[in-house]
Amino acid sequence: MHAIGVDIGGTKIAAGVVDENGTILAMARRPTEPDDAASIDRAVKDVYLELSQDFEIGAIGVAAAGFVDAARSTVLFAPNIAWRDYPLQDRVRALLDADVPVVVENDANAAGWAEFRFGAGRDVDDMIMLTIGTGLGGALVVGGRLVRGAWGVAAELGHMRVVPHGHYCGCGNEGCWEQYASGSALVRDAQAALITRPERALRLLELAGGDPAALEGPHITEAARQGDPLAIELFAELGRWIGEGSASLAAVLDPALIVVGGGVGEAGELLLAPTRHAYENSLSARGYRPLADFQLAAMGNDAGIVGAADLARI
Amino acid sequence: MHAIGVDIGGTKIAAGVVDENGTILAMARRPTEPDDAASIDRAVKDVYLELSQDFEIGAIGVAAAGFVDAARSTVLFAPNIAWRDYPLQDRVRALLDADVPVVVENDANAAGWAEFRFGAGRDVDDMIMLTIGTGLGGALVVGGRLVRGAWGVAAELGHMRVVPHGHYCGCGNEGCWEQYASGSALVRDAQAALITRPERALRLLELAGGDPAALEGPHITEAARQGDPLAIELFAELGRWIGEGSASLAAVLDPALIVVGGGVGEAGELLLAPTRHAYENSLSARGYRPLADFQLAAMGNDAGIVGAADLARI
Amino acid sequence: MHAIGVDIGGTKIAAGVVDENGTILAMARRPTEPDDAASIDRAVKDVYLELSQDFEIGAIGVAAAGFVDAARSTVLFAPNIAWRDYPLQDRVRALLDADVPVVVENDANAAGWAEFRFGAGRDVDDMIMLTIGTGLGGALVVGGRLVRGAWGVAAELGHMRVVPHGHYCGCGNEGCWEQYASGSALVRDAQAALITRPERALRLLELAGGDPAALEGPHITEAARQGDPLAIELFAELGRWIGEGSASLAAVLDPALIVVGGGVGEAGELLLAPTRHAYENSLSARGYRPLADFQLAAMGNDAGIVGAADLARI
Amino acid sequence: MHAIGVDIGGTKIAAGVVDENGTILAMARRPTEPDDAASIDRAVKDVYLELSQDFEIGAIGVAAAGFVDAARSTVLFAPNIAWRDYPLQDRVRALLDADVPVVVENDANAAGWAEFRFGAGRDVDDMIMLTIGTGLGGALVVGGRLVRGAWGVAAELGHMRVVPHGHYCGCGNEGCWEQYASGSALVRDAQAALITRPERALRLLELAGGDPAALEGPHITEAARQGDPLAIELFAELGRWIGEGSASLAAVLDPALIVVGGGVGEAGELLLAPTRHAYENSLSARGYRPLADFQLAAMGNDAGIVGAADLARI
Repeated sequence: MHAIGVDIGGTKIAAGVVDENGTILAMARRPTEPDDAASIDRAVKDVYLELSQDFEIGAIGVAAAGFVDAARSTVLFAPNIAWRDYPLQDRVRALLDADVPVVVENDANAAGWAEFRFGAGRDVDDMIMLTIGTGLGGALVVGGRLVRGAWGVAAELGHMRVVPHGHYCGCGNEGCWEQYASGSALVRDAQAALITRPERALRLLELAGGDPAALEGPHITEAARQGDPLAIELFAELGRWIGEGSASLAAVLDPALIVVGGGVGEAGELLLAPTRHAYENSLSARGYRPLADFQLAAMGNDAGIVGAADLARI
Repeated sequence: MHAIGVDIGGTKIAAGVVDENGTILAMARRPTEPDDAASIDRAVKDVYLELSQDFEIGAIGVAAAGFVDAARSTVLFAPNIAWRDYPLQDRVRALLDADVPVVVENDANAAGWAEFRFGAGRDVDDMIMLTIGTGLGGALVVGGRLVRGAWGVAAELGHMRVVPHGHYCGCGNEGCWEQYASGSALVRDAQAALITRPERALRLLELAGGDPAALEGPHITEAARQGDPLAIELFAELGRWIGEGSASLAAVLDPALIVVGGGVGEAGELLLAPTRHAYENSLSARGYRPLADFQLAAMGNDAGIVGAADLARI
Repeated sequence: MHAIGVDIGGTKIAAGVVDENGTILAMARRPTEPDDAASIDRAVKDVYLELSQDFEIGAIGVAAAGFVDAARSTVLFAPNIAWRDYPLQDRVRALLDADVPVVVENDANAAGWAEFRFGAGRDVDDMIMLTIGTGLGGALVVGGRLVRGAWGVAAELGHMRVVPHGHYCGCGNEGCWEQYASGSALVRDAQAALITRPERALRLLELAGGDPAALEGPHITEAARQGDPLAIELFAELGRWIGEGSASLAAVLDPALIVVGGGVGEAGELLLAPTRHAYENSLSARGYRPLADFQLAAMGNDAGIVGAADLARI
Repeated sequence: MHAIGVDIGGTKIAAGVVDENGTILAMARRPTEPDDAASIDRAVKDVYLELSQDFEIGAIGVAAAGFVDAARSTVLFAPNIAWRDYPLQDRVRALLDADVPVVVENDANAAGWAEFRFGAGRDVDDMIMLTIGTGLGGALVVGGRLVRGAWGVAAELGHMRVVPHGHYCGCGNEGCWEQYASGSALVRDAQAALITRPERALRLLELAGGDPAALEGPHITEAARQGDPLAIELFAELGRWIGEGSASLAAVLDPALIVVGGGVGEAGELLLAPTRHAYENSLSARGYRPLADFQLAAMGNDAGIVGAADLARI
């Protein structure tokens, strides 16, 4: 059965017809207004109309950046779109003439599910997906099933606390993992190094055009690839936090595989090597099980579309 | 179908015939030698022979304190019994004349499953069980299924790290949750208070017969029940760690219910009230979902028997 | 001997003639330009000319918010004034016709010295002054002498690290005491509580006019005085950090008295009671020495003038 | 003036005649009973009688491992000798026929003073001495004077807290610096590595004769000198804690020099290099002052004798 996956971003939606092997057969896009929820509903209808001309569509999966309820129908809250307890499933179905099932999924869950079914995780049953960009999100697969939680809000991995009294987090708590294992953390640590270790931070400062406030993650990746010792050290520190937090997750979930996606993954082995090292050094019950594998995400930017479509079929 | 559940302790085994409602219909016990694995195999056979005289038995579930592999057949390691990669399932089946399935389960998983099926968790699908005695163990139920992990070692909750550079743990790492949220932590904190706040610790010292080294958890529970301010404060601190760690788990798993079992639960609301308070204050996505409920375990000491029997039926 | 003390602020200077009992006999003020160092030099000359008409002046002490070298002559760095390695002593002396000694002091040191000589600390020899406003500064008196350090930069108390991997600090490090024990910390913790405990933060939100970003320290003080539970809790938390950090300082310096000055001290016992409690609970060698006393600063806003004048006489 | 310095250990005392250059001109020793305070008094008298036959003695300084009051006369508490509020000065003077002044000093203070006057610190005015053996003690010199504190208990540096909720300390508190920056910490971390990283700990295990419990500091030093990567890493970690804690002390005291003494100093640059690195990376106000120097103690085992004698002359 073919399904449509829709990935809803802040200013546009991208949709694809996905077959049962996770292949995207056709795509469609529409601009949207983040402040106008109804415009998003209509855009979903539009892409459905466009894509269903050439394909028989059995289900629609909509991936949204926000908290989605356990019934997979309502967006409880979204940080960047005007959704507050928004019945996205009902609204979209009301616009469609067809009787096609619609399900709503958290976008990180959708992307993680795509990795599990068709990407880095296709050979395992127990997988943790870490999506590390500005923040740290993720998805959990336990025994071959996506973990949604009692109220649909599972896998908010970035809000596991790793440091009591640690960095402030936007969620109002202190010491959330996200504040140590994310692109934002990488940049802030680099900016701090500009103050505390200026003589070692010359290359970073240069890449930022001389302005500490202009420093961004890609500058640090570039410097690290060029062999800049401070940048390498910053990735080692980032990897240490990812690996140590993953070891805590492994005490809880005992995964076979941990997939690292998101922009920070661009750094590749510069990040994964210290991550594995820290994981290995902090894992409990270490002698009694193999080490989980760490791999980069394999599905690229369309993972949300593929995962949402596939989850809509279940 | 009736199943036998067997709970293997250090010096004895206890077994029961369990019906599909989780009721124990009959019990049998045998002494065992922890250093003699074969004696345990024979004792399991013995209780089977005894109990199968009056009941038709469809399966045997064996609960063991140790790491059990994902195939539910081999004990990888047990701290108190001479099992190292011990094929307990095979050994027991080889002794039985009957063709009855035998499965091995971690004892905390078995007890947690009993709570989920017949006890505090019977109305939810997503539950975390915390077994807090000398140490901190647990079990996880996600979407109505027990979480075993890729290698059978999931739910080692006590080894989630909660304090970087924190208390040494027997597992070789620092800052494990178990070192803050367990009966041992409670006693050590009380002993520390005897040094730092002697004028407030008079009642505790008295209950310990004047000897700090003789202080035990029940002394602290007794003092707290009598209204001793320091003992109440110690339970508040213990509850704070339980609640804050639970909030981290809730960021990962979004449970509907957290069940507190084990000896420390004896303190009841003295422990649960601060636990709930801390959970509430540290929970992420708090405004977007109900608060998980905290309840004491309801199944008592035979939970391992009931849970092992029930899991053997699945 | 009469001395003039000059307190240099960002936009004005205040000066006073101080006698040997720490009494201010006359005062003078001048506006200044923080970006124009020479304007400050001239203003110092002006107030000297004005005040020396009626009094015979034996010395001038200048208190400046910045790092002052050990020779008490050069401002190495000031956060709010255009001084970088600025030879303030030389510049002022060059403007004066008179041959009167000029010394430069860090303003927190000057204020602490005034407390020691004429205020809360006049009966002790070993005193720690904590100046807790937006940030956390201080002064140390050991054996009756002001501690300046090898390079004049001692008593940067706010930069003692109290939490590894803790809150980011403007100095580039993490976990500085200032980030936990200051008015800024109080406000940020209150703002976090608006997110995590909105139902308990109604009074604070009201005092801030409904705008979390508009919340300021005095709002929290006011709410606490009115009995608002959350505000009281926030001061208790602030006091805990002050007390615990002070216990670390006491392990180093064994003071008889700790003086709390700065805006946060306005809260009085709401702050001092939890401070003392935490100090008592964390002090080492506690049974072998009396507890240091905690007192509010007694010298008011002119402490810098009095202290600078008195130090100039030494 | 010649003075006698007496170093009182658990089972013997060692005494020396010390001239004004810090040179020991003659020595004497006596066995003592730690449980018999009077035997120690008599032993001090004995060595005085012996040494005063050939030298004119102007003062006696007694160094004792314990808390000494600010009047330098009474031992408030000693961990290894039967002194509790023991008037050591009076008792010794009562035994002597001569009218020679007797002062009592904490042994770490005496050793630190010797380094300041005649050893590594002879060219500076502001010095911190860290004595790192099983525990972490120290001495402070500020502006050329020994810091004793209001009640004689200053410079208990090992009890500055560096990790909230950190390792338990014998003092009853958690997270004391001593639990991270001492020989005991080094050994415990090595023993933990035997569990968590057994494949990297083969050399250490071998040096301990195959028994983790038999592992001692000198084994780790030996392995590190031989290039064993884990041992080198353990010293790097130890040095990191020493350096970071020293940076906190530098925020308070701004020393020109930090002297590292005690058994752990045997590792030399294996320890000092990471210590300096961590100090540099965590120092506040770093760009505005030179870096304090780190040096090994230069006075050897008789530092207590030399320092006690010299302090008795003041």
